[in-house]
Amino acid sequence: MTIDLYWGSGSAYCWRVLLALEHKRLEYRSHMLHFDTQEHKAPQMLAMNPRGKLPVLRDGDYVAFESVAVLYYLDRKYPEPPIFGLTPEEGGVIMRVIEEYQNYIEPGLMKIVAAVTDRRGPQIGEEIAEAMHRVAGEARTIERRLSQGDWVVGDRFTAVDMVIYPDIRLLQRALARPAASELAARFLPIDINYPALGRWLDRVAALPGHARTWPPSWGKMG
Amino acid sequence: MTIDLYWGSGSAYCWRVLLALEHKRLEYRSHMLHFDTQEHKAPQMLAMNPRGKLPVLRDGDYVAFESVAVLYYLDRKYPEPPIFGLTPEEGGVIMRVIEEYQNYIEPGLMKIVAAVTDRRGPQIGEEIAEAMHRVAGEARTIERRLSQGDWVVGDRFTAVDMVIYPDIRLLQRALARPAASELAARFLPIDINYPALGRWLDRVAALPGHARTWPPSWGKMG
Repeated sequence: MTIDLYWGSGSAYCWRVLLALEHKRLEYRSHMLHFDTQEHKAPQMLAMNPRGKLPVLRDGDYVAFESVAVLYYLDRKYPEPPIFGLTPEEGGVIMRVIEEYQNYIEPGLMKIVAAVTDRRGPQIGEEIAEAMHRVAGEARTIERRLSQGDWVVGDRFTAVDMVIYPDIRLLQRALARPAASELAARFLPIDINYPALGRWLDRVAALPGHARTWPPSWGKMG
Repeated sequence: MTIDLYWGSGSAYCWRVLLALEHKRLEYRSHMLHFDTQEHKAPQMLAMNPRGKLPVLRDGDYVAFESVAVLYYLDRKYPEPPIFGLTPEEGGVIMRVIEEYQNYIEPGLMKIVAAVTDRRGPQIGEEIAEAMHRVAGEARTIERRLSQGDWVVGDRFTAVDMVIYPDIRLLQRALARPAASELAARFLPIDINYPALGRWLDRVAALPGHARTWPPSWGKMG
């Protein structure tokens, strides 16, 4: 069977799936769609995912979407190397930290990114400052985990690293804009404020195949 | 090993786990905590889940929380009967519909429930009417699924039914308040507006052990 991945550059959700495919060394045909020309809303895309969202992964006749569900499917279909832990206990912690991340961090983080990169110019009000405060606090929890081990859960690169990593890169990139400098002061430079998180970013970036997952629209990594 | 479940009456998240434990016919010690006296924030609870949220499941020395992660752990630890599908493909769809539910329906649904049951009295403004509009639309998608089969995905009761069912009961109960009648007109009575969903509610309610999961604070089912 052939795996087709439909994705967009700069989408953290798509990036997660690229990381999983590379980590599992699965062959896939890469279809980078252009958000600006609405390629993800084309009829053949809506036929696969009526919401017109990316990523969409097709494996033969089977279609998967929603990033965590795609990671889950890939791990059940192609179990080696495992990305949801070696035991029920480890798998439960991986899933739990993903849920915590999605419930308590991601909404705020995405709000910050959207506000900073708003087409009309940065829209940084009190709500965004408050979101930054919460995200910076939650990042402390991740920092503590990473100061005790190389990966967010357990002793290998797992689905939870794949979920969090692209979002942190997105945030890092958004906050590096001059207009966000005041907001960014609590977070950047990551190496200083969150040293274990900074080393983990480097660790993920050094994984085989990582370069193929870096958003082309972002230019060279640096 | 002994399973201990710490839960609160009327919490949809806790209810999911109760449904899974009953469905898997696992023995568990039930610890119903009282939200009004903040029992879920007691030191021994915070030692298990620092966020002080329920449900918390302890299985011997192992602690699980965040409802979907608990379902996932239980299914890996106690695979029979499976609640995440029999194949990677079915599992992928179950996880995808859970993700879609959590991303596109649940936030609006919970906002409606909170607004209707606000202690200060119902707080039904434009934002809530808009949320009701979206939730009613998304419920059509679930209705379509249920008009094609007895369960949300596949031919058995799975984790996705366990995730959605308590939320729908919560919404149904909130909208039944006289103050919500205008808001409720698009949704209630469920039997009329969403007949397949209504039959599915009855189907879940007829499952063995369901009565033990019904929130005691709600009184008799009916």
